[in-house]
Amino acid sequence: MYNCIICRYHEIATKGNNRGMFERCLVENIRHLLKTLDGIKVSRVRGRVRVERDDKGAFTGEQLDVIKSQLRKCFGLESFSPAVITAVDMEEIRPIAVELAAGAIGAYQGEGKVAFRVRARRSNKRFPLTSRDIEIDLVSAVAARTGEDKFTIDLNNAQITLGCEVRDEFAVLFMESIPAPGGLPVGCNPRVMTLLSGGIDSPVAAWLIMKRGSPCDFITFHSAPYTPPETVEKVQRVAGKLNEYQMHGTLCIANLSEFQKAVRDNCKEKFRTVLYRRAMMRIAEIAARHRRCHALVTGDSLGQVASQTVPNMYSVGKAVDMLVLRPLVGSDKLECIRLAEEIGTFDISNVQVPDSCTVFAPSSPCTSSEPEILEQEEKKIPDYWQILEKIALNLEEWT
Amino acid sequence: MYNCIICRYHEIATKGNNRGMFERCLVENIRHLLKTLDGIKVSRVRGRVRVERDDKGAFTGEQLDVIKSQLRKCFGLESFSPAVITAVDMEEIRPIAVELAAGAIGAYQGEGKVAFRVRARRSNKRFPLTSRDIEIDLVSAVAARTGEDKFTIDLNNAQITLGCEVRDEFAVLFMESIPAPGGLPVGCNPRVMTLLSGGIDSPVAAWLIMKRGSPCDFITFHSAPYTPPETVEKVQRVAGKLNEYQMHGTLCIANLSEFQKAVRDNCKEKFRTVLYRRAMMRIAEIAARHRRCHALVTGDSLGQVASQTVPNMYSVGKAVDMLVLRPLVGSDKLECIRLAEEIGTFDISNVQVPDSCTVFAPSSPCTSSEPEILEQEEKKIPDYWQILEKIALNLEEWT
Repeated sequence: MYNCIICRYHEIATKGNNRGMFERCLVENIRHLLKTLDGIKVSRVRGRVRVERDDKGAFTGEQLDVIKSQLRKCFGLESFSPAVITAVDMEEIRPIAVELAAGAIGAYQGEGKVAFRVRARRSNKRFPLTSRDIEIDLVSAVAARTGEDKFTIDLNNAQITLGCEVRDEFAVLFMESIPAPGGLPVGCNPRVMTLLSGGIDSPVAAWLIMKRGSPCDFITFHSAPYTPPETVEKVQRVAGKLNEYQMHGTLCIANLSEFQKAVRDNCKEKFRTVLYRRAMMRIAEIAARHRRCHALVTGDSLGQVASQTVPNMYSVGKAVDMLVLRPLVGSDKLECIRLAEEIGTFDISNVQVPDSCTVFAPSSPCTSSEPEILEQEEKKIPDYWQILEKIALNLEEWT
Repeated sequence: MYNCIICRYHEIATKGNNRGMFERCLVENIRHLLKTLDGIKVSRVRGRVRVERDDKGAFTGEQLDVIKSQLRKCFGLESFSPAVITAVDMEEIRPIAVELAAGAIGAYQGEGKVAFRVRARRSNKRFPLTSRDIEIDLVSAVAARTGEDKFTIDLNNAQITLGCEVRDEFAVLFMESIPAPGGLPVGCNPRVMTLLSGGIDSPVAAWLIMKRGSPCDFITFHSAPYTPPETVEKVQRVAGKLNEYQMHGTLCIANLSEFQKAVRDNCKEKFRTVLYRRAMMRIAEIAARHRRCHALVTGDSLGQVASQTVPNMYSVGKAVDMLVLRPLVGSDKLECIRLAEEIGTFDISNVQVPDSCTVFAPSSPCTSSEPEILEQEEKKIPDYWQILEKIALNLEEWT
């Protein structure tokens, strides 16, 4: 019987002048997430977004399943509720409330009486009943249908909650509020490019920045023939999963092996990892400018591995003239793993496949480098920039 | 009767060559946190840290209270347990186990039988009993004392758990594992400087970076006489709270008002906020180099306010030649608030006091700046660098 989804947002509501832009962006994202469904209308209504069928009819079970699984991935949303929409009139609200609540109370299978409550919210201040009045009216009506012995009222630990929002133009009734990830709608901040390594952290970093409203393109590095095709396939799966949370992101695939051979043949062994990282950042920067991405994103976590020390992050960041976002720089490994599980990338990332960084990896990488010394090492490779530009020109794009 | 605290760590345990350094750093931090207690010994024992009294006696109630409240603030620790230390011998272990467990079972006040379990762990592989054997032995001994009808065994949802670790040199028995914040011990990564604004986010950013092992100094900006003394006092309270988590951090206090007047009188109004931010970063960089800090830390969260857009973060970061760490760049406001509450800075930060950024603040700040244009604006202030250097030379240091 649900003929509406009522969608709530939080952080957007705090935006002043730009609020309209954020709301339009959110609506566009919801439309995109529901694009496999035909005949669906998404519209803004003061402080909420409303999803309905064009014919105003009830959603089918399949439609509700798709909507529920898709809106859980919608950044900018705090929560949403499948709801029944009615006129702003207690005579219309009451019978629907009774039907929804009595159905849920009747279906209760547990021991003893079920704990029930009504939570009403009245943004329409001309409505004659207060929120409290609405709650009392609806509880009485539900008790009249089920009998008073079927439930107890529990305002704090209810097992069944009937929600009622009375707004200016319409009222809604609903039985559940499904949490969504929060944040800002993807697209309200500039596009960025994330370096995806195949590890657990970088997909989480991409996801966190997408959650702050920036669409992501991705770049990954392999070292064929020194790494197997699985190295890239794994990152493709990760990018596919991340793209479920945004409208579109391209994965750029770069083969670093020619550069790595040049480093192996010309530079001090202990600097190899950090020289690779500088080259990856530079290639990523070229690709980012080409694709109109305005920042680079990495999964760096302070002190987690040798290339993520303060001096090495500085040396690597200095290789580019672009903002570098490291959303996990203050996070623990266990926190990253927990988030990766929530996002759905953990099981993909956790498969052990050789990655590009391990090719010709030094036995004892330096933990403290200086940009000047690394520049000297880079000068030992006579065609340094030609190699990088060639790699950047030969990116394979996967979408 | 507890005569030992057994301390567990996690991420350190994954460190290879540097593990000894991490462990020594952790021991030093624990000693510092317990420095108000006399006659306390902190030592490393294969994979654990052990805290005891010099006289091997039982801790007093007051000592245990101090230890519990202090070790909860110890980065690098995962958890700790007040414990009784015994010889590696069931005849010694058993009576103490019975006393601890029977005491807890006897003190149970709830309905029905209490759910109890023993969890044993044997790292000493020459000990004749397996972990399972130890558990059975101790449960039987406890039942013999209390009577079998006093508890049920519940391995998954126990209300009372007796822990037993049998190690090479000693065994420990304990009734609780108290969570600690995890991360890396402060001091295992280089010192950094955090810009504390008086808002909710920047103390959380400092805390997260401390949690990754970097000791923090702090810098804050006021605009006396345009801001009241409360502006600084608030940040002093925040720095005091953050210093509970590390050995030592100095708060540098800078008066930005002369610079702000110069900006007001010479530059375009819409750029004021981002010009302030660039000056703050530059003064912070001078102070950081002076105090041997190797990176700057800010509370920036992508898109949260006008100065935290991608282009403005880029323009502000370009003002300095130092690594900028923004651990909250991918975090939502609600997540920051939750962490601030956990750390204990929220109630201090949440007091509304004018801050330096609001002095002469533009009505409509630019959300997208370019470093080149900002440099031109800065050139309109003839003595730009003299003003900044004067401010940096006249920092007030508060410890």
